[in-house]
Amino acid sequence: MSATRYAYLGPEGTFTEVALRTLPEAATRELVPMVSVPAALDAVRSGGAAAALVPIENSVEGGITATLDELAGGEPLMIYREVLLSITFALLVRPGTKLSDIKTVTAHPAAQPQVRNWLAANLPSAAWESAASNADGARLVQEGRYDAAFAGEFAAATYGLEPLVTNIHDAENAQTRFVLVGRPARPSSPTGADKTSVVICMENDRPGALLELLQEFSVRGVNLMLIQSRPTGEGIGNYCFAVDAEGHIADRRVGEALMGLKRISPNVRFLGSYPRADVSPGEVSPLRAGTSDAAFTEASDWLARCQDGRI
Amino acid sequence: MSATRYAYLGPEGTFTEVALRTLPEAATRELVPMVSVPAALDAVRSGGAAAALVPIENSVEGGITATLDELAGGEPLMIYREVLLSITFALLVRPGTKLSDIKTVTAHPAAQPQVRNWLAANLPSAAWESAASNADGARLVQEGRYDAAFAGEFAAATYGLEPLVTNIHDAENAQTRFVLVGRPARPSSPTGADKTSVVICMENDRPGALLELLQEFSVRGVNLMLIQSRPTGEGIGNYCFAVDAEGHIADRRVGEALMGLKRISPNVRFLGSYPRADVSPGEVSPLRAGTSDAAFTEASDWLARCQDGRI
Amino acid sequence: MSATRYAYLGPEGTFTEVALRTLPEAATRELVPMVSVPAALDAVRSGGAAAALVPIENSVEGGITATLDELAGGEPLMIYREVLLSITFALLVRPGTKLSDIKTVTAHPAAQPQVRNWLAANLPSAAWESAASNADGARLVQEGRYDAAFAGEFAAATYGLEPLVTNIHDAENAQTRFVLVGRPARPSSPTGADKTSVVICMENDRPGALLELLQEFSVRGVNLMLIQSRPTGEGIGNYCFAVDAEGHIADRRVGEALMGLKRISPNVRFLGSYPRADVSPGEVSPLRAGTSDAAFTEASDWLARCQDGRI
Amino acid sequence: MSATRYAYLGPEGTFTEVALRTLPEAATRELVPMVSVPAALDAVRSGGAAAALVPIENSVEGGITATLDELAGGEPLMIYREVLLSITFALLVRPGTKLSDIKTVTAHPAAQPQVRNWLAANLPSAAWESAASNADGARLVQEGRYDAAFAGEFAAATYGLEPLVTNIHDAENAQTRFVLVGRPARPSSPTGADKTSVVICMENDRPGALLELLQEFSVRGVNLMLIQSRPTGEGIGNYCFAVDAEGHIADRRVGEALMGLKRISPNVRFLGSYPRADVSPGEVSPLRAGTSDAAFTEASDWLARCQDGRI
Repeated sequence: MSATRYAYLGPEGTFTEVALRTLPEAATRELVPMVSVPAALDAVRSGGAAAALVPIENSVEGGITATLDELAGGEPLMIYREVLLSITFALLVRPGTKLSDIKTVTAHPAAQPQVRNWLAANLPSAAWESAASNADGARLVQEGRYDAAFAGEFAAATYGLEPLVTNIHDAENAQTRFVLVGRPARPSSPTGADKTSVVICMENDRPGALLELLQEFSVRGVNLMLIQSRPTGEGIGNYCFAVDAEGHIADRRVGEALMGLKRISPNVRFLGSYPRADVSPGEVSPLRAGTSDAAFTEASDWLARCQDGRI
Repeated sequence: MSATRYAYLGPEGTFTEVALRTLPEAATRELVPMVSVPAALDAVRSGGAAAALVPIENSVEGGITATLDELAGGEPLMIYREVLLSITFALLVRPGTKLSDIKTVTAHPAAQPQVRNWLAANLPSAAWESAASNADGARLVQEGRYDAAFAGEFAAATYGLEPLVTNIHDAENAQTRFVLVGRPARPSSPTGADKTSVVICMENDRPGALLELLQEFSVRGVNLMLIQSRPTGEGIGNYCFAVDAEGHIADRRVGEALMGLKRISPNVRFLGSYPRADVSPGEVSPLRAGTSDAAFTEASDWLARCQDGRI
Repeated sequence: MSATRYAYLGPEGTFTEVALRTLPEAATRELVPMVSVPAALDAVRSGGAAAALVPIENSVEGGITATLDELAGGEPLMIYREVLLSITFALLVRPGTKLSDIKTVTAHPAAQPQVRNWLAANLPSAAWESAASNADGARLVQEGRYDAAFAGEFAAATYGLEPLVTNIHDAENAQTRFVLVGRPARPSSPTGADKTSVVICMENDRPGALLELLQEFSVRGVNLMLIQSRPTGEGIGNYCFAVDAEGHIADRRVGEALMGLKRISPNVRFLGSYPRADVSPGEVSPLRAGTSDAAFTEASDWLARCQDGRI
Repeated sequence: MSATRYAYLGPEGTFTEVALRTLPEAATRELVPMVSVPAALDAVRSGGAAAALVPIENSVEGGITATLDELAGGEPLMIYREVLLSITFALLVRPGTKLSDIKTVTAHPAAQPQVRNWLAANLPSAAWESAASNADGARLVQEGRYDAAFAGEFAAATYGLEPLVTNIHDAENAQTRFVLVGRPARPSSPTGADKTSVVICMENDRPGALLELLQEFSVRGVNLMLIQSRPTGEGIGNYCFAVDAEGHIADRRVGEALMGLKRISPNVRFLGSYPRADVSPGEVSPLRAGTSDAAFTEASDWLARCQDGRI
């Protein structure tokens, strides 16, 4: 039964829901909004949902650090997909409301930086009230509590509102990245444009430890796309590092780098290898010389010959 | 006038306010809650406030990524102080409410991970509703909309509530780190236990660029305490790195490392050198041999002698 | 037939011969002096000798750079043993000669630095004449051409001389290292205190290329004991690096490091894994955590589990 | 008086003498052959000579390791010039001797690898006898002791011989590098194509120590042209590293790298900054971005502004 349910960071009408609906399989699943990222991931862990879509980078709905903390700790989970969504807001109002009528606006606090320039230019005297989510803000406009809400244009229908202005967004940080998380299983096959996520926790942080971890990647020509350090909460100097690396665990350069991490820090957790949403296989930057699977195989063969004295 | 005002991530009754009140000078300032981190920092930029306290790490009130993005871009700001606050929640109720009366609870979604274990054990059937902030949740309990709110115990008095249970928190991540941000000025003198924050943005991310940045620190024996990468929103491969390093910009090892960053990446922004809140000067880990100011001076003297042929 | 012959850097009566005679198997071989290191190694390559002993580090008989160049190029050879020999000189004279009789002294020029302090203190006015080898100097004394020769005390008998003074040596650099070189074959099994020699040639030297090579060792915790760069003679920027690393090619950390070298630089040549002469297995410095064969195996197992989704 | 004397690795008629005569100032100096590299350098130290020319890389006359050891220890000396000399041999014979008359040949053993291919092809049955130097070999031919000597063509006149065959050399390693060494003084000004030599000794070799040293160069974009490790003779693990780096001590990137070495290892010795003989200023490879003196100045200015709060 749970195989038919996908959890997501709710409530309904959020960008996370929109991101989830971009996945073809979402059409055949029951989509269940959850109150928080931990709640969404707990639903997966408990078997209540087959997977959960949660924001992991650059969110306008919060949750990023919660996502990283949840993936780093507790019962293991794995990432199977990523979704990139361009974030633009609409100003939602009750039908008939004009711009000049708007005295109060609302949205999730994380949305405020995306719309403040627009607000300053167009509604400089409107009062801002924070809502628990962008969708909740829309509901409060529907109830008449505020005059307008910033939310995704798609939320208008749900709450009987109309989009008075659309395509509002700050110039920068216009994309949010979401990941589809499930219980551990064999990763999908490499596509040629893949990403591998890991989190490494260090109990006794030595100076230079982070550098050593990064060298495990760099020495094998594996580029990093993201690195985040997160305190573990167990005292000063105890950090986890979440890293996204180019390539798939089935690539030999990635596999050897991961083994290097494992040897340095037993507390490394594999979070999955999955297709990149930002580029297609034809657009991936070329490998550094000597880091292809063919180069690894050639080097293994050479080593075997040396060990046999056939040089 | 603005010199008397300190902004903070509001509303009133948040942990941020409590953190701000731990600073002695807060007693003589007007403390002004702001709707979001960007709003708080804009108040500083515009001269409406002398400084702003905002969460920067491990928050239960959101805002971390907004804080990093705001410090990385826009009109320059600097960090002058940091505050560490142990986060524990109280369950606030209207006077007379008993645990068995509670059917609905509320709080900011970022608080949910901190209380979910307690909830599962003590109020397994209570319905969760998200609030725009923990303080707002308390207000909604006061208004009778929910039965109980998780918030700081200090918020009880503000909203005429009483703490039914106190000291609720998840085992991990129990501290939040806040920074006091102001307009640029000369940093305070070194105390012997200082931290330096910078953000480096790379327009054309090359493989290995992050490693090069980190080597500027490691080669001079400067330990890193935090590293975060943030996409700049200007396309794939454009990232900013926020780094906290041990030491003060007046320390020669730190100064030389910063100059090294500047030469690699013109787009480096100094965010301040300020006293560490986690350790006192007597507790700082010892410097690596050869990285003290005395060692730098000795090496400079030696270089001058070599340049003169007095070897 | 050749299996019974060992070549060495001659002529007879050199320290190289003494070093060769420290090997137990030398007692059953025909020992053949050769005019130069290349000549000795050519004898091995051509099948005229089963092996050759030649100096490779800190010699008082020359040949070091020739040894490195010969091992780096031409038909592949491998090192099977190393011998360390403490070098002290005797002053050899015709029977009856007294110190006050000595007006002329001779030896190979490379011996001169080892005896000059002694000469300045004891025979300040003696004239030095260079000989083609220390043994040749002894012969010239026998022939009456010079009054005294510096050579190994063992050379006295060969040339009918007597050691007037023994144990002459400069305080430093008192050991010479020799290697026994043969045609390629399977290395002997690890002893627990082994050394691995390789030479890497780079056709187009990029800045930082050497550093990359060294990182292949350091990232896997393999210590280097010796590093030498040698120009290849094919133009500026074309260098070979000869490296001695702790450990045996059968050790997984060493094998993985060698494969890393091979991928960076196809022109890497394995020169052998053989027992260290400087320490016994019980005296080897401890491995860095995470670099034992057991740690490699554990990491491989973990990787296989991750690839299967069993995390 | 000594200011008029230049010592060199003798005897007369060596390639070292030829290399010395390529220096314009040699025409006005008294050129004094010395028996060994240490003897030549001692003459400088004692004031008996103003400078000494000695081989330091890829010599056919020996002396390289002696040169490195001498520069690393004892009274400090500095390198002021380098000379590159293409090495080709002539076969010198007494007038009238024909190739078919030659039964014995002689030369310094270090010359043998350069001529062995020619010998195998042209005089396969000639017997080789080693001489103490190539010049000494020529003298022995003059005396009738051998039939022919390999030496520089220039040596023919000195010993009344004639060059029967010229331009004999092995394909590789055809250049020898010599350095002109004097007592310490201010280095000559940068030319735009300079080289800086240092030697670093480490008393307690830690794993990774060499890598740390090299990173001091690489992190500042200073390319290395040569690296040699030399045992100090004071026990296992005590090594000196001789390094040639691109650039001049007056270049800020080089100066900062040298200070970094000095802080890591107090036992670093500056051996001089001097013009490169291999390339002219117009042919030097471009600097890495951010490592010019201008970039260093800009970074210093920026640091000063940060320290003042003017960001």
